[in-house]
Amino acid sequence: MSKVYQMFSYELLRRLLLTGAGLLALTPAAVFAQHEVDAEADLGPIVISSNENAFGFSQMAMMAMMEDVQQVNRYGRDNVVALVNLIAEREGVSPSWVMPTPGSGPFLLTTALAFAEPGKNVVTVAPGYTQLTEAFKKFGGDVITVPLNDKLEYDFEALSKAINEDTVMVYICNPNNPTGTCPDPEAIKSFIRGLPDGVVAFVDEAYLELAEGGLDKHTMRTLVQEGEDLVIARTFSKVYGMAGARIGYGFGKPEIMEKIAKYNIAGGPSRVGAAGALAALNDAEFYDFSVTSYQTVRKMVTDRFDELGLTYAKPNGSFVFVKTGIPIQALAPMMEARNIRIGRAFPPLLDWARVSIGTEQEMRTFLAVFEEILRAQGKIAMSN
Amino acid sequence: MSKVYQMFSYELLRRLLLTGAGLLALTPAAVFAQHEVDAEADLGPIVISSNENAFGFSQMAMMAMMEDVQQVNRYGRDNVVALVNLIAEREGVSPSWVMPTPGSGPFLLTTALAFAEPGKNVVTVAPGYTQLTEAFKKFGGDVITVPLNDKLEYDFEALSKAINEDTVMVYICNPNNPTGTCPDPEAIKSFIRGLPDGVVAFVDEAYLELAEGGLDKHTMRTLVQEGEDLVIARTFSKVYGMAGARIGYGFGKPEIMEKIAKYNIAGGPSRVGAAGALAALNDAEFYDFSVTSYQTVRKMVTDRFDELGLTYAKPNGSFVFVKTGIPIQALAPMMEARNIRIGRAFPPLLDWARVSIGTEQEMRTFLAVFEEILRAQGKIAMSN
Repeated sequence: MSKVYQMFSYELLRRLLLTGAGLLALTPAAVFAQHEVDAEADLGPIVISSNENAFGFSQMAMMAMMEDVQQVNRYGRDNVVALVNLIAEREGVSPSWVMPTPGSGPFLLTTALAFAEPGKNVVTVAPGYTQLTEAFKKFGGDVITVPLNDKLEYDFEALSKAINEDTVMVYICNPNNPTGTCPDPEAIKSFIRGLPDGVVAFVDEAYLELAEGGLDKHTMRTLVQEGEDLVIARTFSKVYGMAGARIGYGFGKPEIMEKIAKYNIAGGPSRVGAAGALAALNDAEFYDFSVTSYQTVRKMVTDRFDELGLTYAKPNGSFVFVKTGIPIQALAPMMEARNIRIGRAFPPLLDWARVSIGTEQEMRTFLAVFEEILRAQGKIAMSN
Repeated sequence: MSKVYQMFSYELLRRLLLTGAGLLALTPAAVFAQHEVDAEADLGPIVISSNENAFGFSQMAMMAMMEDVQQVNRYGRDNVVALVNLIAEREGVSPSWVMPTPGSGPFLLTTALAFAEPGKNVVTVAPGYTQLTEAFKKFGGDVITVPLNDKLEYDFEALSKAINEDTVMVYICNPNNPTGTCPDPEAIKSFIRGLPDGVVAFVDEAYLELAEGGLDKHTMRTLVQEGEDLVIARTFSKVYGMAGARIGYGFGKPEIMEKIAKYNIAGGPSRVGAAGALAALNDAEFYDFSVTSYQTVRKMVTDRFDELGLTYAKPNGSFVFVKTGIPIQALAPMMEARNIRIGRAFPPLLDWARVSIGTEQEMRTFLAVFEEILRAQGKIAMSN
């Protein structure tokens, strides 16, 4: 567990050379030793601030991208078509229901643009992920925020009450970012089914593959298939570990997607990103490795938080939200001084910290430094 | 000239292995022969429909992208920052004046969104490139089109007369797409300087590196530096041959860029694309190869058109616009049947064809087929 996913293999190299360079004469020999990734040799900062995948990403995806890079003088739209077809198959919808974007962020922003207008509002929670809702405000609409409950979970009753005649959308990030909490699948289903006419649910499932019980237990895709008024967003940046390749998508029924597509000015992902995403979808080995790694290291972190008597929200994503009792604006620089970068402020819970899950090694270092700072500030009871 | 740019070299491979795989023990040996690209072996269609770069792209860029692909589990925003800084230096403006986008298309569309409103119009030419103007219409504005003159060149007097009190933008693609014609630099400068207050010039210089006389002679960047009301768009998809990597940008003074940036929902290029673009900007060898190849093969094509007595617009981009006398809707399938894909319809000149410049070999094949079809249709005089 202390290693990141094997980043290079002889087989990968061989196939790269065969396909990419047309070099057919490669003799195996022992010229190429397996590449060992030694996490301890890395003297850079521990970056656990942006929910990037510290475990790496699919070798199949890397190989596909290295191959595809050699053809970037062509637009390569076929790659994106193939990706959309496979996504549609996996989500159980028609390809025309899927809109691929360079990361899921542009899908969130495009949706905000399509739905925002003066006098109309989007309902969401605080603390929550604000990319869509902030854009909704910027493009002229209003945002109504509802607090989470005392377990930092969605309170659907409160959300329902907040909806008014000017509400056009409800934005739900599941698991919620920054808290990592997942609602009971039946509760969110009932909530969406009970939404008033004219209110579209936007369910951002960016981290849902990492939830306890897995994606299939929690995803709202069956409601999309049934024609409910909702869209789902997904990304290759998290469990698939391909944040820098910019691939994401949204899907929903045509009535909603056509409204959003009118403002689709971002275009799709690049051919290289699409080639990588296609390969990643067919690499069950890395997917399982990523899910298992996240869940194992996440548990290691929360087990230690339990020992230290710290309060945290039940995590289901690639991060943990923990109460430190120290303003994040003060804590972050203290951690940074020790070469560890943690997440930004998430109002209104300003004395909590969002910590991305890194490798086991990184999280052991994090825990040691974190404990030291919290003890020095008197935030951990002497008995713990 | 009949080969595409050397797609793989031993040095590239060696550096890839050294940096990417950490394999330090690579013995050179004769295991790796130089890779020869044999254009004749390619049995696929000749694709001269999308202004893609048939000459390939920078090896340095390919190498940079192959290296960078290995880190896509991180967002890698530093790459984009470095790219913007270098672009700003080359354009002679502040980095804050530059907006990078995944291809220049999103910059055109974002600008359309920022400026379009009911009752306001954009002035442009027909035939011209319609991505920005069609979006302007879709987002609620109007489009006023002005014909080109009898040489299929910009008629700035007619453009000036078309501007009215509701005009907010003039869109100029230079060289114009699909005609490839370039205005005299002093004429376009005078036109922009003379625009009424409140009218922003959008100069799309996507192909300008390929113009007779070169980029520096024709670009309007000095007007941007002087604070005129204009923005310029550029792309890495054409002379740099990186269409599939999705990298482009726009630049202009802050008052204009801030208005556009409000609608920047596409995000920047990927870290991989940015790494490639950075390398491409530092690869003068490929740039020169690309410019020379285009200009040489373009001249070969127009020389033959001259011999055949065909009428064409004076080309300055990566394509030639030629009068065939056959409706493009009929000609394109005839060419397709012979395994050659040419450009789409460009109203109102529907009996003209836009032909992208491919390799010398591809264009010899194109010319043979094209001549045969035009002769069979009686569109080439018997004496030619």
